[in-house]
Amino acid sequence: MIKTVEFGDNGSVRLIDQRLLPTEEKWLECKDYREVADAIVKMVVRGAPAIGVTAAGGLALGADSIDIEDIAQFRKEFDSICKHMGATRPTAVNLFWAIERMKKAAQKEADSVAAIKKRLRDEAVKILNDDIAINERMGKYGEPLLADGDVVLTHCNAGALATAGHYGTALGVIKAAHVAGKKISVFADETRPFLQGARLTAWEMKKEGIEVTLITDSMAGYFMKKGAINKVVVGADRIAANGDVANKIGTYSVAVLAKTHSIPFYVAAPLSTIDFSTPDGRRIPIEERDVREVSHIGGRQMAPDGIIILNPAFDVTPNEYVSAIITDRGVAKKPYIESLEGLRTSV
Amino acid sequence: MIKTVEFGDNGSVRLIDQRLLPTEEKWLECKDYREVADAIVKMVVRGAPAIGVTAAGGLALGADSIDIEDIAQFRKEFDSICKHMGATRPTAVNLFWAIERMKKAAQKEADSVAAIKKRLRDEAVKILNDDIAINERMGKYGEPLLADGDVVLTHCNAGALATAGHYGTALGVIKAAHVAGKKISVFADETRPFLQGARLTAWEMKKEGIEVTLITDSMAGYFMKKGAINKVVVGADRIAANGDVANKIGTYSVAVLAKTHSIPFYVAAPLSTIDFSTPDGRRIPIEERDVREVSHIGGRQMAPDGIIILNPAFDVTPNEYVSAIITDRGVAKKPYIESLEGLRTSV
Repeated sequence: MIKTVEFGDNGSVRLIDQRLLPTEEKWLECKDYREVADAIVKMVVRGAPAIGVTAAGGLALGADSIDIEDIAQFRKEFDSICKHMGATRPTAVNLFWAIERMKKAAQKEADSVAAIKKRLRDEAVKILNDDIAINERMGKYGEPLLADGDVVLTHCNAGALATAGHYGTALGVIKAAHVAGKKISVFADETRPFLQGARLTAWEMKKEGIEVTLITDSMAGYFMKKGAINKVVVGADRIAANGDVANKIGTYSVAVLAKTHSIPFYVAAPLSTIDFSTPDGRRIPIEERDVREVSHIGGRQMAPDGIIILNPAFDVTPNEYVSAIITDRGVAKKPYIESLEGLRTSV
Repeated sequence: MIKTVEFGDNGSVRLIDQRLLPTEEKWLECKDYREVADAIVKMVVRGAPAIGVTAAGGLALGADSIDIEDIAQFRKEFDSICKHMGATRPTAVNLFWAIERMKKAAQKEADSVAAIKKRLRDEAVKILNDDIAINERMGKYGEPLLADGDVVLTHCNAGALATAGHYGTALGVIKAAHVAGKKISVFADETRPFLQGARLTAWEMKKEGIEVTLITDSMAGYFMKKGAINKVVVGADRIAANGDVANKIGTYSVAVLAKTHSIPFYVAAPLSTIDFSTPDGRRIPIEERDVREVSHIGGRQMAPDGIIILNPAFDVTPNEYVSAIITDRGVAKKPYIESLEGLRTSV
């Protein structure tokens, strides 16, 4: 079982350092909430659900470190820690969802600071355990969309490493089909600039014993045209109320290519990734990251100095390109504004 | 003026080592035709026209080294050198075009082996000089397709470094528009796996004083959707008689994205790149290169061992995606089967 994030008995947040995979499997232990925030910024951990779980652990750790007995003062301090955590990455909505959930947990407890701290630790553990259960359910709902013999393209890594561990979102659907006895083969886009496909998805699929073929992002169209790929499944960092999907840069290009070749394009994401307060994709903020991720690879300079470089980390795929959205409460189809709302209120 | 290939007085073939750009500008001197062939295989030199010019120089060098006075025996030896040179890279048709031109030159001379050798040296020089003149003409024909203020996306490097030097094909059109006083800004796809865009196109544009923005291949769709790009110009490695275009892997994806966003997609290539003996793109052989180009970047391993990796070096863009083909004899439009044939017979 692949693990991504663990909480130590002392409240520390332990993360597998995803920057070093697949050649090194090394864990980083954060004993301070600032270290946790920094690990999110630097992409030691990435993937919308994993960021949410990690942030929750970081907030519990931060709360523990507040040396104040007065509840009102404690809450003020905790709010500022929440702000610090929220400033790490702007696109993945699970981050803000997890912070809100932790804030609510803190508000529900009023006995003592110690009781609030305990409540926050418990809530972080619950968010972690919930995430694994959620991904299992998503796999169960999504698995029927894949048929025996399918060759499934995925972009970036929406696997165990993008969640609390074990299953993953898009790769969870693939794993569920594999476990159900279907022969599934995966094409992994390498996913420049951070190479999550080459480094993480390929590594995960190999660990799970699922056949995986690595290609560069620029090859997806070629293999679709050849008929080598017949489904696409990706994850999401934020889904607007109308079903527009923000995901790793390059996802939109894959969606356009899938449509051109009449290949179904599925998105797998927990309900916590759906931002019902954002009506459409135009309002989703797109993070711009350090251009060194583009100009340098493995520490080596690839581009000349003195040119313009751009590095948007995400793009938005309009809902018309999305064949279905697989959630932990069922599969949504068009029109998403209704089907997603239906899933939200289905419990 | 950017130079790519030079012939020394001793017949040696000097190449700027494109694998080391942009951080190192180092020339490699080949004193044996086998070294020239090896440099083509290893992509010290690349780009369809540059491969043709380099191969011609290599054949002249190879002919010079044949220590035989009998003309018939000499021709036999020369043929085997031509075969060796032709086995380097299968997709770029300029290679075979240059070899044929050298073979014909050798056949036209029958006085002595020395005279044939001289004829071959002269022919190689002529191919080199012709290439520069051809690219200047192509720029002149293509320049009116670009307007003041255009932002032009290009994929791979179809610049001076892809030809004998100075101008280039796709970048030649851009340079001609720049020289004509139009403000042109270039978006360069980095072009994995070999990074010709990041390493070569960005370097060339900077040298020429043309604004260049580097993006990963996966970002092209995002910037097209944003309206940041309004033209595409690429080169070609082989164009079939019907206008289907083989070019660097990823070109097809760019063409599909351009069509989706109603952006004109132009191809610039000399007539020697048009393979009138190949009726359509399905018959163009696609080179598969070492998968280490995908798994390792700058010598560093990025993907786990024990997975499948694919590395097709080219793809084919069907003629319906091509808005115009800019050649050294004019601009061809649909239907290409007629317009290209018209240009061929236009002299």
